[in-house]
Amino acid sequence: MTTYIDFRSDTVTKPTGAMLEAMMHAKIGDDVFGEDVSVNELERLAASMFGKEGALFCPSGTMTNQIAIKCHTQPGDEVICDADAHIYQYEGGGIAVNSGCSVKLLNGDRGRIDSTKVAEAIQPDDVHRARTSLVCVENTSNRGGGSCYDFEELKNIKQVCDENNLAFHIDGARLFNAIIAKNETPKQYGEIFDSISICLSKSLGCPVGSLLLGNTDFIKKARRVRKVFGGGMRQAGFMAAAGIYALQNNIQRLSKDHENAKAIAEVLNDASFVSLVLPVETNIIIFETKGITAKELVAKLKEKNILGYAIAPQRVRLVLHLDTTNEMVAKTIEVLKRLM
Amino acid sequence: MTTYIDFRSDTVTKPTGAMLEAMMHAKIGDDVFGEDVSVNELERLAASMFGKEGALFCPSGTMTNQIAIKCHTQPGDEVICDADAHIYQYEGGGIAVNSGCSVKLLNGDRGRIDSTKVAEAIQPDDVHRARTSLVCVENTSNRGGGSCYDFEELKNIKQVCDENNLAFHIDGARLFNAIIAKNETPKQYGEIFDSISICLSKSLGCPVGSLLLGNTDFIKKARRVRKVFGGGMRQAGFMAAAGIYALQNNIQRLSKDHENAKAIAEVLNDASFVSLVLPVETNIIIFETKGITAKELVAKLKEKNILGYAIAPQRVRLVLHLDTTNEMVAKTIEVLKRLM
Amino acid sequence: MTTYIDFRSDTVTKPTGAMLEAMMHAKIGDDVFGEDVSVNELERLAASMFGKEGALFCPSGTMTNQIAIKCHTQPGDEVICDADAHIYQYEGGGIAVNSGCSVKLLNGDRGRIDSTKVAEAIQPDDVHRARTSLVCVENTSNRGGGSCYDFEELKNIKQVCDENNLAFHIDGARLFNAIIAKNETPKQYGEIFDSISICLSKSLGCPVGSLLLGNTDFIKKARRVRKVFGGGMRQAGFMAAAGIYALQNNIQRLSKDHENAKAIAEVLNDASFVSLVLPVETNIIIFETKGITAKELVAKLKEKNILGYAIAPQRVRLVLHLDTTNEMVAKTIEVLKRLM
Amino acid sequence: MTTYIDFRSDTVTKPTGAMLEAMMHAKIGDDVFGEDVSVNELERLAASMFGKEGALFCPSGTMTNQIAIKCHTQPGDEVICDADAHIYQYEGGGIAVNSGCSVKLLNGDRGRIDSTKVAEAIQPDDVHRARTSLVCVENTSNRGGGSCYDFEELKNIKQVCDENNLAFHIDGARLFNAIIAKNETPKQYGEIFDSISICLSKSLGCPVGSLLLGNTDFIKKARRVRKVFGGGMRQAGFMAAAGIYALQNNIQRLSKDHENAKAIAEVLNDASFVSLVLPVETNIIIFETKGITAKELVAKLKEKNILGYAIAPQRVRLVLHLDTTNEMVAKTIEVLKRLM
Repeated sequence: MTTYIDFRSDTVTKPTGAMLEAMMHAKIGDDVFGEDVSVNELERLAASMFGKEGALFCPSGTMTNQIAIKCHTQPGDEVICDADAHIYQYEGGGIAVNSGCSVKLLNGDRGRIDSTKVAEAIQPDDVHRARTSLVCVENTSNRGGGSCYDFEELKNIKQVCDENNLAFHIDGARLFNAIIAKNETPKQYGEIFDSISICLSKSLGCPVGSLLLGNTDFIKKARRVRKVFGGGMRQAGFMAAAGIYALQNNIQRLSKDHENAKAIAEVLNDASFVSLVLPVETNIIIFETKGITAKELVAKLKEKNILGYAIAPQRVRLVLHLDTTNEMVAKTIEVLKRLM
Repeated sequence: MTTYIDFRSDTVTKPTGAMLEAMMHAKIGDDVFGEDVSVNELERLAASMFGKEGALFCPSGTMTNQIAIKCHTQPGDEVICDADAHIYQYEGGGIAVNSGCSVKLLNGDRGRIDSTKVAEAIQPDDVHRARTSLVCVENTSNRGGGSCYDFEELKNIKQVCDENNLAFHIDGARLFNAIIAKNETPKQYGEIFDSISICLSKSLGCPVGSLLLGNTDFIKKARRVRKVFGGGMRQAGFMAAAGIYALQNNIQRLSKDHENAKAIAEVLNDASFVSLVLPVETNIIIFETKGITAKELVAKLKEKNILGYAIAPQRVRLVLHLDTTNEMVAKTIEVLKRLM
Repeated sequence: MTTYIDFRSDTVTKPTGAMLEAMMHAKIGDDVFGEDVSVNELERLAASMFGKEGALFCPSGTMTNQIAIKCHTQPGDEVICDADAHIYQYEGGGIAVNSGCSVKLLNGDRGRIDSTKVAEAIQPDDVHRARTSLVCVENTSNRGGGSCYDFEELKNIKQVCDENNLAFHIDGARLFNAIIAKNETPKQYGEIFDSISICLSKSLGCPVGSLLLGNTDFIKKARRVRKVFGGGMRQAGFMAAAGIYALQNNIQRLSKDHENAKAIAEVLNDASFVSLVLPVETNIIIFETKGITAKELVAKLKEKNILGYAIAPQRVRLVLHLDTTNEMVAKTIEVLKRLM
Repeated sequence: MTTYIDFRSDTVTKPTGAMLEAMMHAKIGDDVFGEDVSVNELERLAASMFGKEGALFCPSGTMTNQIAIKCHTQPGDEVICDADAHIYQYEGGGIAVNSGCSVKLLNGDRGRIDSTKVAEAIQPDDVHRARTSLVCVENTSNRGGGSCYDFEELKNIKQVCDENNLAFHIDGARLFNAIIAKNETPKQYGEIFDSISICLSKSLGCPVGSLLLGNTDFIKKARRVRKVFGGGMRQAGFMAAAGIYALQNNIQRLSKDHENAKAIAEVLNDASFVSLVLPVETNIIIFETKGITAKELVAKLKEKNILGYAIAPQRVRLVLHLDTTNEMVAKTIEVLKRLM
C-alpha cells in the first residue's frame, strides 16, 4: 500500500501511539447518566483553559456550531458572518434547517469581518426584516487560508455586539492555530465570546469530537439541543481521553506546522506554475495555479504520492498537521522544486 | 384634512366607487366550506387568465410567496434569487422560518438575475451544501425601480431549471405592470412558471389580497400550507369581488401610470438636485439626490403635500398608481420644476 | 334557490345590512404603514374591553392561535391542552410546523382541563423531555359542545402556570358566548391570560377576522410573526369596521342564541331518535342518534331545508348564530317533533 | 471503590477485553472522505444482515430515529406511534423540533400497537388535519418492559402502511433481543420496514453508536440529515470496530440475559413487596411494589450494591446486559429472597 503525504486536510490525522494508549486506558461510564469520568474531565479541562463555566463534548464541530446558533437565536432571527464562513458554506444549510434563521453575509478580508461592516449589517427594528441577534466569526478562517484575526478587531466587534444586544460566537475549529500563531491565550477568547467551539479532530490530532464552551445556563440549553439532535453519546470517554491528551500535549507543537507551511509557501512563491500564494499565517497554504489547472496540478502531485485539494479551478489548498513530519516537508519541497 | 399626492407606494390605493359597489354586492359564503361564490369565481378567473389549473386567494403577497416556497422545497434546500428580492429583503426572514431553506443571493441587474448566474449558483451534490431546489424571480423588481425582465431571459432561466430539476416561481406583485409595459400576455407566464404570485392590492387597486397560481396538485398542497399559516378566511368574498373587478377593469389603465412616471422622470432628469434617475420602465421612479439628502428632499416635497419615500440616504422612490390623477402629475411636475 | 336553516356552524353568518353599511363607509388606509383608521380603532377597542395593552387584527383564529403559541414558546417546548382542543385538532398540525413544539394532551371534561391535570402534565427538567412552557384552554369548547369553564378553575390553572413559569393562552373563538352565558366580563379574562384570541367571524357575525390580545411587548412580537406568516393586510379596514360594529352591537344578543339552543335541545331530549343530548350551555347542540346514523339524520333534516353536521357516526352538531331567527327555531322544532 | 451490580440500563456496559482489542487495532480513516475502513465495513455488514442496501453509522439511537423521521416526512405530517414510544417520550420533543411533525399516540399493549388502531388513526384528507405519513414501532418496547411484537402483527401494520402510502420505521434499539427471544431473523425485518434503527451501545455492549438501515436513496437522504445535525464524525472507526465485533460475537448470548431476567422475575413474583411483575420476554424486568415505594426499594437494593431504576412511584425497572454475570444474578436472587 502506498503511503501518501496527505495535505488534503488536518482532519485526516490518526492518533499517535501515546494518544491511543490514553484512549484505551480511559476511565469511562454512561455519559447520559453524567458518569463518564473522561468526558467530565475533558469538559472541565477545556472550560477552565478558556475561563468559561462549562463545556459540552459533541461528535463534530458542525454540531457545536449548530447548537450554539440554536441556543443564541429564535426562528426569524438573522446571523451575521463572513461569506466564506464554514457555518454558512459547509454545514448543509443548517442555520436555516436547525434554527430557522437567515444569514447576512459580509465580504470580509480572507474570511475575517470587521466591526464597521458588522454595525452596518444590523437590521433596523422593522417587521419586514429578520431580527439580527448573533455575530459569528471563524478563527482561523479555513477558506481565508488559515488567516488569523487581529484580537483588537474581535474586541471591536464585541463592542458592537454589546451595544446592540447581539450574542457573539466563535467557530474555533482551528482556534489553537491562531492562539499559537498570534501568541494569544485561550482566556482572552473566553472573556469576549458568549460561546466558543473548538475542534479536537483537526490539528490537535484526535479521531473524533469538538467542544462547545460557555457559561452554565448556556451549556444547560446546549445540552438539551445536543440531545434533540441525537448528539448525546454513552461511553464517549474513549474519544474524550484523546481530547484530554491533545489539550495537554498537542498545542505547542502547532508552531512546527506553521513553520513548515511557510517553508513550503516560500518554494511555491518562486514556482513557475504558481501565480499567487495567499499569506501563510498558520497551517494552511492556498495558492493559485498558472499554466495548469488546480486539478491537473493535484493529479501531478498525487503521482508523487502527495495529496492536495483543488478548491477552485485555479486554487489548490495544502494543510499541515500532526501527521506531517519534517521528512514529508523536505520531500514535498523537493518535489515542488522538481516540478518547476 | 390635507389631501396628499401619495407616491409612497402603490399599496395605498383605496377602492373606487365602482369597485366598492362590486364589493357591496358580492355574493359571499363560507370559504372554508368552499362556498364563497366570489372567491371561487376570482380563483377561476385568475387561473384561466394565466392558463393554470388552479388559484388560491390569500391575505397578502408575502403569504403567496411564502406558501409557494414552502410547497416547492424541503427544509435544507436552497432558493436562488436576486439580492434585492422582496422574498429575501422584506418577508421577515420567512424563507428560513417557514421553510427552513437557505438563500443563494445573486447580484443581478436592477433586481433581475440571468440564466448564466443561476446555472453557476446551483450547489454541487455534496452533504456539506444545501440542496438547490428553487429559483425565484420578481417582475417587475421593486428595488430595481420597476425594471422588467426580457421574456427571453426568463425562458433561458426556465431551461436551466428544467435541466437541473429546479422549480421556478415568480413573485408577480407587479406582474401586470410588466405585462402591459412589455406587451406580453399572462399565458406566457403561465407556460414557464410552476407557480405565480400576483398581488391585487398594489396597482390593481384592491384593498386586500393576492393570488397564488399553479396546477391542481400544487394548489392542493398550497391550500394546506395556507391553513397552517392561518390564511384561510371565511366570507372573503367582499375582498374577492374587488379582485374580480380589478382583473376586469384595472389592467389596461396601467399604461397611464407608466406614461406619467416617465413624464415625472423626465423632469427629474433635468433637476439640479438629482444626480441620477434609474431607467423608468413602469410605475416606479427611483432617483439619487445631489446636494440634498433623500430625507430632506422628501420633507421638502411633503411641505408641498407630495409624499415620497427615502429608500436610502441619497435615494428617493416615487410610485404611481390607480389613485394618481393627471392633475396630480401636473401638480407634481410643477412643484419639482419650482424646486430646481 | 332554496333557503336553508343553516346550523352547520356559526361561521356561516353573512353581514347584516347595518354591518354592511358600516363596512362600506369604513375609514381605511394602508395598515402596513399603520394608517388604517378602522383597524387601529378596532384594535384599541378590543384591547380596552379586555384590559390589555394591545391587539392585533388577523385574517383568522387559526392565525391568532398559531401566533400566540409561537410567541410564547421556542422549538423543543411543549404545550399542554385538552385532547379536543382546536389548536391540536383543526389547525393542520401547526403547533409542530410553525413552532416546533410538542403537545401534551389531557383528557378533560367536555374539552375543559383542570389545574390538577395540568400540574401533573408538566415535564421534569430532563434533556430527554420536551420543556413545558405553555398552557392553552378553549372557552367555550367547540368539540365539548359549547361547554363553558368555571372561572375559578381558570384561576386555579393560572396559579399552576405562575408557579411553574408557564404562559397561559386562551383560544376564545367563542369567548363572548361563555362571557354572556356565565355573566362574566372580558376584563376578568384580561387579568389572568397572557394572550387571548377572539374570533369576529363566528357568532359575532363578521365576515372575516380574529383579534389577538396581549401586552405591548407580546403584541410587538406577534406583529413580527404575523408578517412572516403573511397575515399583514393593506386596507383591512373594511373587515375591521365590521368588527367594530360587532363588538358594539352583537354581544348581548348571544343570549338569544343560547335560549334558542336550549329550546331545541329540550325537544331533542324527548326525541325517539336521540339517545343523549350533551348539556347545552351556549349556542352549540351536540346529540347522539339512536336507530339512525348521524349522516342519515342530517340527510333527513336537509330534506326539510335544515342543515346540521355529522361530527361522528352517531353524533350530530347544530350551531345557532346571528342568522338564526326565531322563526327558524320554531320551524326546526316543528320539523324535529314531526320526525319522532 | 464499591462495585455495583448495575441493572439501571443496558447502556451502562463497558467494552470487554476482546472488544477493546478490536477497537485498538481498528483500521481507521476520515469518514467525511468516506475513507474510514471500519465504518465502511460496519455499514456493509449491518446492511447485509438485514438485507438492506445501505447503512449509516451515527452517534446515538436518538439520531438514527430522528433522521429516519425527518427523511420519511415533511413539516405538517403526522407520525403514528405508541404513547410509550421512545421517539415521543425520550427524544426531547425531536419529532416537532427536527421534523415539524405532529404525533398521533395510540394506547397499545405494553408499548405495542396493532394494525386496527393504526388504520383508525390515519387522518382524513382535510386541510384542518395534519397529514399522516409515517408509522413507527419499537421492538422490544422499553417502557413496555421489553415486550416483543408478534411478527404477524408487524406484517398486518405493514399492509395498512402500504394501503395508505405510509412509511414504516422501526426503532430497534433492542431489536436483537426480540429477534433472539422470538427466534426471528434480521432479514424478516429488512423485508417489511422502510428503515430500521439498531443500537450498538445497549445489550450489544459497544461504547457508542447506532446504525440506520435502508435502501440507497434513503441512506443518501439520511447522510444529508446526519450532516446537518452534526452527526458526521472523522475517525469513527474506533467505535465502528466495536460494532463489528458486537455484531459478530454478542448477539446469540442475549438469550442468557433473557433467561437470567426470567429467573429474577420468578423470585419477584413470590416477593411480599411486589404486587405485579410484567411478563418478562427479554432482558427487562418491570414490577410494581407493594407496601414500599419504588424509590425506597431502589434505595434498599443500593445498600446491597444492586442498582435499579424507579420509573414510577410504584414501579421499578431492572435491565440485564453483557456485564451481568451469573454470579451477579445469583447474588441478586439471594438479596431479593432475604428482603422478603
